Amino acid sequence: MKKILNNPSRFVDDMLQGILKAYSFHLRLVESGKRALARADAPVRGKVGIVTGGGSGHLPVFLGYVGKGLVDAVAVGDVFNSPTLDEILTATKAVNAGEGILYLYGNYSGDVLNFDMSAEMAEMEGIDVETVLVSDDVASAPKDQWKKRRGIAGLFFAYKIAGAKAEERAGLAEVKTAAEKAVFNTRSIGMALSPCTIPAVGKPTFSIGEDEMELGMGIHGEPGIERTKMKTANEIASVMTNRLLEDLPFKKGVEVAVLVNGLGATPLEELFIVYSKVHDILAEKKINVYKSYLGEYATSMEMAGASLSFLCLDEELKRLLNAPAFSPFLPQWG
Amino acid sequence: MKKILNNPSRFVDDMLQGILKAYSFHLRLVESGKRALARADAPVRGKVGIVTGGGSGHLPVFLGYVGKGLVDAVAVGDVFNSPTLDEILTATKAVNAGEGILYLYGNYSGDVLNFDMSAEMAEMEGIDVETVLVSDDVASAPKDQWKKRRGIAGLFFAYKIAGAKAEERAGLAEVKTAAEKAVFNTRSIGMALSPCTIPAVGKPTFSIGEDEMELGMGIHGEPGIERTKMKTANEIASVMTNRLLEDLPFKKGVEVAVLVNGLGATPLEELFIVYSKVHDILAEKKINVYKSYLGEYATSMEMAGASLSFLCLDEELKRLLNAPAFSPFLPQWG
Repeated sequence: MKKILNNPSRFVDDMLQGILKAYSFHLRLVESGKRALARADAPVRGKVGIVTGGGSGHLPVFLGYVGKGLVDAVAVGDVFNSPTLDEILTATKAVNAGEGILYLYGNYSGDVLNFDMSAEMAEMEGIDVETVLVSDDVASAPKDQWKKRRGIAGLFFAYKIAGAKAEERAGLAEVKTAAEKAVFNTRSIGMALSPCTIPAVGKPTFSIGEDEMELGMGIHGEPGIERTKMKTANEIASVMTNRLLEDLPFKKGVEVAVLVNGLGATPLEELFIVYSKVHDILAEKKINVYKSYLGEYATSMEMAGASLSFLCLDEELKRLLNAPAFSPFLPQWG
Repeated sequence: MKKILNNPSRFVDDMLQGILKAYSFHLRLVESGKRALARADAPVRGKVGIVTGGGSGHLPVFLGYVGKGLVDAVAVGDVFNSPTLDEILTATKAVNAGEGILYLYGNYSGDVLNFDMSAEMAEMEGIDVETVLVSDDVASAPKDQWKKRRGIAGLFFAYKIAGAKAEERAGLAEVKTAAEKAVFNTRSIGMALSPCTIPAVGKPTFSIGEDEMELGMGIHGEPGIERTKMKTANEIASVMTNRLLEDLPFKKGVEVAVLVNGLGATPLEELFIVYSKVHDILAEKKINVYKSYLGEYATSMEMAGASLSFLCLDEELKRLLNAPAFSPFLPQWG
C-alpha cells in the first residue's frame, strides 16, 4: 500500500483536520470530537436544512458538497463506513432553522439505518425530517426495483437541484419533491479498471487482471455486472450510454445534463475521450446535451475508472442546475 | 498499459474532440486541423493577449487555463511534447487585439525553442510579443540558477496573476511585470510515488519500488533529488515546506497562498493530510496562509504523487489572486 498518510487509523481525522484548516472560512466542526461539519453560516434563517453523509474516501462526496446552493451539513463516517447516529443528529441540529430538514444521501443499508434512527430522534425533539435516497446506479438492481439501487455520482445532481430549491426558500415538501425529481430523472453506471485500498485494511478491495475491466462496479468495489477484456473508449462509452438511455428511458428530443466522473486515478484526458463518443451517440439519437460536467465528482480514492450519469431535464431542473452555488472543493477563483 | 482510449496515436486528437464538444461555449479551435485553441470571445478588445502551451497529459495544464481572467489561447502538443511553431503562431494571431501578446509558459527547452521562433515570426507581422517563463521547481536547479528551473504547478499562480492583470486592461509591459512578479514569488517542489505511461510509448516513464518515493521528480518523470523509502505524510510535508521556505526565502510575517496539487492518481483525501501539516509548520513560523488551493492543478496523467507551491503575496498579488476568473476545467456551478 503506497499512500501519503501518517497512521492508517487516523486517516479520516487527519484529513478532516486539513480540511478544517484549509477551508475554515467555509466549514465548521459542529462539536469538538464529533465528525459533523456544517456551513460556517448555518443555520440559514428561513431555509430548509439539507443534511447528507456517508463513508469517507469519496471526495468531493460527501463533505465537498456543503455550501451555498448545496447542502448544509454532513456526517462523516470512516472510510467506506456509515457515520453514527450521533454524528448525523449533531449535523441535523446544527443546521435546523425551524423550516425542516431534508436527509439526502446515497442508498446504502448502514447509512439508511443510522439516518432513519436520527430522523426519529430529531422528530422527538420537534424537528421535521424528510428523507430522499439517491439510487442512480442502474447496475445495482433491475429497473422495476430502482429504489433498491445504490447511489453513486448522481448524488451531484441531487445535491445541486435540492440545494438550489432550498436556497430559493421553498418549503420542506417542495425541496423533497425537487430532490425526488432529480433522483427519478438521473441514471448512472460505472466501470472500474483497478481497485483501491482502505488505509486501515491495507490491501486492495478486489483484484482484477492487467487487461480486464468491470462494468457496473460500485464505488466501494461492489461487484458489477460484467467483467471483460479491456474495451476501447468508444466501446465503453457506447455500452454505458445505451444502458442508461434504455433505463429511464431517455427519449428523442429531451435535454440532458451529462456527467463523466473520474473515480480517482483516471486522468481527465481519458474522461474527455469517453465524452466525445457519448456526445456523438446522443446527437445521433437527437438527445440534446444541455450541459456537461467532467472531472472528479464522486471518487473511490485511487480506484481507476469512470462513471457516466445523465439527468433528464425540464425547465425547473434547468433553472435549479444553473442557480449559483459554491464550495471550495470545486477549485476556487476569487 | 490500462488506459481508456481508442488508439494511442489519436489520444490527443480524441481528447481535443471531447473538450471541444463539451465546452464549445467556452473554447474554439482556431483553425481546422491545427491544435490551437482560443477563448470563444477572443480577441478581446483593448486587452493584452496571453498565450501559453506545452505538451499534453497535464490537464488542467495547459488548455484548462484558457478563460476570462486567465489566458486567451493555447498551443497543444502531443503528450509530453512541445507544440509546433505553427500552432503557437496560430494561437498568437487568434488572440491579437493589437495590444501585444504575452507568452507565458513553463521553462522546457522544446517549448522555449518554438515559442521564441513564433515570437520572431509574430514580430515580423507587427505583433509585439513579450515572454515570461515559469520556473518554480526548486528541485530542478540551484537557487542562483533559478531561471533554469522547470515550470510545474506554479503555472497556476502565474496564469491567475497575469490573467487578472490583463483583464484590468493593463498594458503589455505591466502584464509582463505582474507575471514576472508571480514567478519570482513562487516556489514549488514535487514528489512522486508511481510513474505514468505515455499512450504512444506504452510503458511507464520510470520504475520505482513498491516502498519508495522520489522527492523533486518533474512532471514528465524527470529525475528528482532524492529517492527514499516511503515517508509519512507529516515527514513529506515537512521536507517539502522547509525546502520551499528557505529558497525564496519566505520570512516570518509574510502572507502566502498555498497550493497542494495532486499529480493524477493521488486521492484528494491525502492532499488534505499533507496540507494539515504544512499549515501547522507555517503557523509555527508565523507565516500566514492567506488562501489555500487543493486539488489537481497540474497533473502527469495517472502518476501518483503531489506537489507543494507557495506564492509570497503583497497587496497587488492579493488583489489579482482574488479577481474573478472562469474556466470550465474548474468544475462549474451555474
